[in-house]
Amino acid sequence: MTDSTVTSSALDRLTCVIPAGGVGSRLWPLSRANAPKFLLDLTGSGDSLLRATWDRLRPISPTDRIMVVTGNAHRESVQVQLPELQTNNLITESEPKDSSAAIGLAAAILELRDPDAIIGSFAADHVIRGDVLFRRAVTAAAHAADQGSIVTIGIHPSHPSTGFGYIACGPARNDIAPFDVYSVTEFVEKPDQERAEQYLESGNYLWNAGMFIARATVLLDQMAESRPELVTALREMAATWDTKKGAAVRECLWPTLEKIAIDYTVAEPAAAAGKMVCVAAHFDWDDVGDFASVANLLTRGRGSGSDLAVLGDGAQVLSDASSGIVVSESDRLVALVGVEDAVVVDTQDVLLVTTKSKAQDVKKLVERMRVTGGGHLL
Amino acid sequence: MTDSTVTSSALDRLTCVIPAGGVGSRLWPLSRANAPKFLLDLTGSGDSLLRATWDRLRPISPTDRIMVVTGNAHRESVQVQLPELQTNNLITESEPKDSSAAIGLAAAILELRDPDAIIGSFAADHVIRGDVLFRRAVTAAAHAADQGSIVTIGIHPSHPSTGFGYIACGPARNDIAPFDVYSVTEFVEKPDQERAEQYLESGNYLWNAGMFIARATVLLDQMAESRPELVTALREMAATWDTKKGAAVRECLWPTLEKIAIDYTVAEPAAAAGKMVCVAAHFDWDDVGDFASVANLLTRGRGSGSDLAVLGDGAQVLSDASSGIVVSESDRLVALVGVEDAVVVDTQDVLLVTTKSKAQDVKKLVERMRVTGGGHLL
Repeated sequence: MTDSTVTSSALDRLTCVIPAGGVGSRLWPLSRANAPKFLLDLTGSGDSLLRATWDRLRPISPTDRIMVVTGNAHRESVQVQLPELQTNNLITESEPKDSSAAIGLAAAILELRDPDAIIGSFAADHVIRGDVLFRRAVTAAAHAADQGSIVTIGIHPSHPSTGFGYIACGPARNDIAPFDVYSVTEFVEKPDQERAEQYLESGNYLWNAGMFIARATVLLDQMAESRPELVTALREMAATWDTKKGAAVRECLWPTLEKIAIDYTVAEPAAAAGKMVCVAAHFDWDDVGDFASVANLLTRGRGSGSDLAVLGDGAQVLSDASSGIVVSESDRLVALVGVEDAVVVDTQDVLLVTTKSKAQDVKKLVERMRVTGGGHLL
Repeated sequence: MTDSTVTSSALDRLTCVIPAGGVGSRLWPLSRANAPKFLLDLTGSGDSLLRATWDRLRPISPTDRIMVVTGNAHRESVQVQLPELQTNNLITESEPKDSSAAIGLAAAILELRDPDAIIGSFAADHVIRGDVLFRRAVTAAAHAADQGSIVTIGIHPSHPSTGFGYIACGPARNDIAPFDVYSVTEFVEKPDQERAEQYLESGNYLWNAGMFIARATVLLDQMAESRPELVTALREMAATWDTKKGAAVRECLWPTLEKIAIDYTVAEPAAAAGKMVCVAAHFDWDDVGDFASVANLLTRGRGSGSDLAVLGDGAQVLSDASSGIVVSESDRLVALVGVEDAVVVDTQDVLLVTTKSKAQDVKKLVERMRVTGGGHLL
């Protein structure tokens, strides 16, 4: 059996799961409860991030092997975006329970469909450029997963970002693949500037893109080590998934599930136990966490002060010596005079003005509004 | 005859003229061709600047001795603002001809009504606080004008402004009044920062508020020294002002008039000839030239970075660590996050974002739009 046969076989058993949750409150007022980040077009391509994610995965997995997990409220929007999505591959949550439950339920369903199923989880609201490199990385990850590892895909950093988490890589795992696969020493939180520069210089740190690939059973067993009750409930729901009883069981059990990110139930414990490996990849990746990221994406990273990005079909912008980003959902003229690295988001009912360096703080304002009123605008 | 009798008599012969022209393009998009600066409420008082000017002058002059000069297009708006304005005291221009023609025609009309008439010209779009001090200054100016001088009112500077022109004062004119009247050495343009500080320190420089008070005949005779044809035409128009022929004569002559500011035809030549005097005044004055001035007025000069000013009846503003000014003509929420000294003007069809320090440059953008299109938004 050659490597390529093994790889192909692993890919044939891969199902891609797209967890589509999270409003993306740093992107308010563009993102709203009824227009979460994954339904937005943040690249000016005309496609939502969810649709772009689907289109990126389709050359890897056929339609019947792509699942979406989303909130009840977004079922219809998701189906409009993804008319090809099969009904039995759409998992809707009655309330958000974070990624352990969302990905875990998908894994439990896949494990029943095929005991050798491999699950790959890819966020619905990230931007990736370089589809060939992406497919190559996923193929390598599926191969490694097939051999029993829990796999993540790490991105070679292009700059010392303080906005992303990092993966600390250990020795190359030539036992798994001849190149680009490393053991994971640990996952580290967003660093400060100095540390980010050290990470970049060391060459051992990759951006954590939150992608996980593993045999469904391996993933669930890892989760069960620290969260046995959660996994029992997920497997119980999966057992009735395709039956008439399914809805009732889920309705009963879902609210009881622990709300916790898969980082804590799978990734970090697996890394600590030496069971996590990382495929190092070179495609362009961004989690588009705030309007500064959107601006940088649109100006292709030409950097601060260099350009004015414009997003919005009918956007009319007049600028005099200004830089930053204008997002327009209105047909009004947006005139900028001498503002540097500005963020201006013009919607029908809310106008936001901030700067690229303060774009992260939009979340604080949103949290304040949630408490003090104005929730109808969120 | 005591001083107070003389003064009272001079005031009785004073007619206040309000030239109401000038769109105020640095205040775009709040100011428009059909909503010039003098029709705006820039103080949040509920009154337009024109109305506030009228109300400031009324304790000085009765209704029948206040005139307004404005463009044909603004006749109706002016009458709505000033229902008390007498029709024969409303001069409308078929095209803008600057202040020599506007004030000169008023002077020519007044000279015919009363050979001893005194004319005082006060801009329609400045903001003044301290009405008692203002009245005291106008009274002193009328007194000095009655004795044959051409008089301006200069404002003691409160800070080294680079946004105003200055009046260089010479020796006190105790022959005219016991205090506060000085000869005018020259008028100087807006200075740079260093020079503005020197002006402030010297104590001999006052802000030029563009107020002129003189006997109508003295003013016209001064203008005639350099512009005899202009004054001849103005007196010809005045001669028929109250007759049936008036409209036809004006229609014929007005387009032929030279377009020139009164600074060049009266103020500067009179200063050079030693015929100009200045009343030094202590009231608060601002020509509200741009949004930075509007912001400073609204925050009562608390200065840079210290506060967020809000203008607009229904303005809804949410701010997180931001300063500057929001002007809202919409019912949208304006959210600011971490922007310092921002200027945000939210109208139905245009949104402007700039900074207090760049607020002057709005004029450039407007000029660009006039040339390159977008004139319908001006």
